[in-house]
Amino acid sequence: MSEKVRIVLDAMGGDNAPGEQIKGAVEAIKERKDIVVILTGDQEKIKSELSKYPDYPKDQIEIVHTTEVIAMAEPPVIAIKKKKDSSIVVGLNMVRHGEADAFVSSGSTGAVLVGGQGIVGRIKGIQRPPLAPLIPTKDGVSLLIDCGANVDARPSHLVQFAQMGSIYMENVVGVKNPKVAIVNIGAEEEKGNALVKETFPLLKECKDINFIGSIEAREIPSGYADVIVCEAFTGNVILKLYEGLGNTLISKIKGSMMSSLKTKIGALLIKKELKNTLKSFDASEHGGAPLLGLKGLVVKTHGSAKAIEVKHAIFQCVQFKQQRINELIEEKIIIEK
Amino acid sequence: MSEKVRIVLDAMGGDNAPGEQIKGAVEAIKERKDIVVILTGDQEKIKSELSKYPDYPKDQIEIVHTTEVIAMAEPPVIAIKKKKDSSIVVGLNMVRHGEADAFVSSGSTGAVLVGGQGIVGRIKGIQRPPLAPLIPTKDGVSLLIDCGANVDARPSHLVQFAQMGSIYMENVVGVKNPKVAIVNIGAEEEKGNALVKETFPLLKECKDINFIGSIEAREIPSGYADVIVCEAFTGNVILKLYEGLGNTLISKIKGSMMSSLKTKIGALLIKKELKNTLKSFDASEHGGAPLLGLKGLVVKTHGSAKAIEVKHAIFQCVQFKQQRINELIEEKIIIEK
Repeated sequence: MSEKVRIVLDAMGGDNAPGEQIKGAVEAIKERKDIVVILTGDQEKIKSELSKYPDYPKDQIEIVHTTEVIAMAEPPVIAIKKKKDSSIVVGLNMVRHGEADAFVSSGSTGAVLVGGQGIVGRIKGIQRPPLAPLIPTKDGVSLLIDCGANVDARPSHLVQFAQMGSIYMENVVGVKNPKVAIVNIGAEEEKGNALVKETFPLLKECKDINFIGSIEAREIPSGYADVIVCEAFTGNVILKLYEGLGNTLISKIKGSMMSSLKTKIGALLIKKELKNTLKSFDASEHGGAPLLGLKGLVVKTHGSAKAIEVKHAIFQCVQFKQQRINELIEEKIIIEK
Repeated sequence: MSEKVRIVLDAMGGDNAPGEQIKGAVEAIKERKDIVVILTGDQEKIKSELSKYPDYPKDQIEIVHTTEVIAMAEPPVIAIKKKKDSSIVVGLNMVRHGEADAFVSSGSTGAVLVGGQGIVGRIKGIQRPPLAPLIPTKDGVSLLIDCGANVDARPSHLVQFAQMGSIYMENVVGVKNPKVAIVNIGAEEEKGNALVKETFPLLKECKDINFIGSIEAREIPSGYADVIVCEAFTGNVILKLYEGLGNTLISKIKGSMMSSLKTKIGALLIKKELKNTLKSFDASEHGGAPLLGLKGLVVKTHGSAKAIEVKHAIFQCVQFKQQRINELIEEKIIIEK
């Protein structure tokens, strides 16, 4: 039997920690034998949560006691530097030292991004590690790369994003020969800002990706491209507008259904189907966002993550490890540089 | 009685031209006595459309015959230069020469933007004219400024966008002391890309606007700010994602309602309320997007504009003229420079 994938889970990070985190971990190890989940955090709290689940494979859970927690609002650079015994820093150090393959956290995005780069470190040749969430589209998902903290990227960064994103979509999500497009304000090659205009010909020349040209934001939800390349500021705007607009539209639709007895009855009749539809457009169904290009995997789940998202993120780590994504990134990207 | 507002309408521009354009013009002049609509385009086609409406105030319509049309796909700069007798160039020249106060077109956005700047010209002191559509929010609308063709703006441009946007929202849309925010990837002042970091303190110092800080894209649909300031690339992404995500969600919701007899009955019961809700989130209900800072008003309506949008755009021009927006822009912005 092959070696188990070792995943550190930040038990203290997120709005619903440690309850939903530990529930997700227990559900994950119940479903798969080939993983070990290492929980970092306050061991008393962790044990108390674990005691709610009498029946799980105990040899697949480890606890590493930590005494500090990085809060959501803390400045990330200082927090990572000072809180050496936090669940995030301890977890990332385990990945750095090869004691674990991956780290999953629903805690401070800034701290995870800063710590991921600073502690785990980049694969040699990778200029900048992008944060790459899967976003829902009409009939599936697309990888939006980069939504991270490092804005004002250079063209060569975006080319690496396209390469890493393609490897991820092909090998973790299972999309054959994924279509790559760059976010632009028009379909033509001569359109765009300085960054896009410089990047476009580089992507065209890049042989190991399936570059299909520009994508206007209007086409993103239709699933026109599998890997959507952009600079982090733009990616962040897209990701957050997705959330905000979805929430506002859904709350308006719900409001309209509660306006009279007639509409309430109508709402009852379509409730189940509508819920399923809206669920398919909920980002949390698609696991966490990987920070790609690091020597080890770091996955950021939503601050509001529930057990299901945590479980999916853990499975994502297994897939990432077993598909040898980092080896593929090293082979494909470094050799060219 | 005060002088009539003279509005040129491009009768040839848009997917539904000239039918919907002329219908919108006729509806507008039937409702208001204080406007004259000048139609530019093929006079035979225009007359033939007008003949469908026997009963309208004929002294409020003028026709200026033109022999050329700029197509959607034509490169704007060349088209504006070569097609001197197009409905767009002739219309813009009328504004330039003071023969009309405003120009409305559903034709090529590029041509309208390029022609607006090149032919009508900027107000002295205005560095860059932004395109500023109203976007629907939870309970109203916000002005998104800039969504135009000139990307890679400088901080001083964004400050002028904030000032012009405030004047527009206060005097045309009627929002007292409009809240101004800059699109950013976090709420804190130190967050952002180089442009936002440089612009933020300038907006804070700017006395004649009500600056409330950063806005994350997630908060845009909630109506957190009235004037949403951003560089054109970002603005374009926001505007188009609004359209694309709205359309995709609505088509998914409609699909879920057609999945069984039960849901079809439910859909019938909520149809009217749902339609009204979705209509309130339809950008075309809010007239066209003004190109601000020009010596005269230029308004771009959707390529797919129907008569209702054309009519709203015409009324928007009246409000703009009667509220003396350009005089306010000249007074407030130029004196400071």
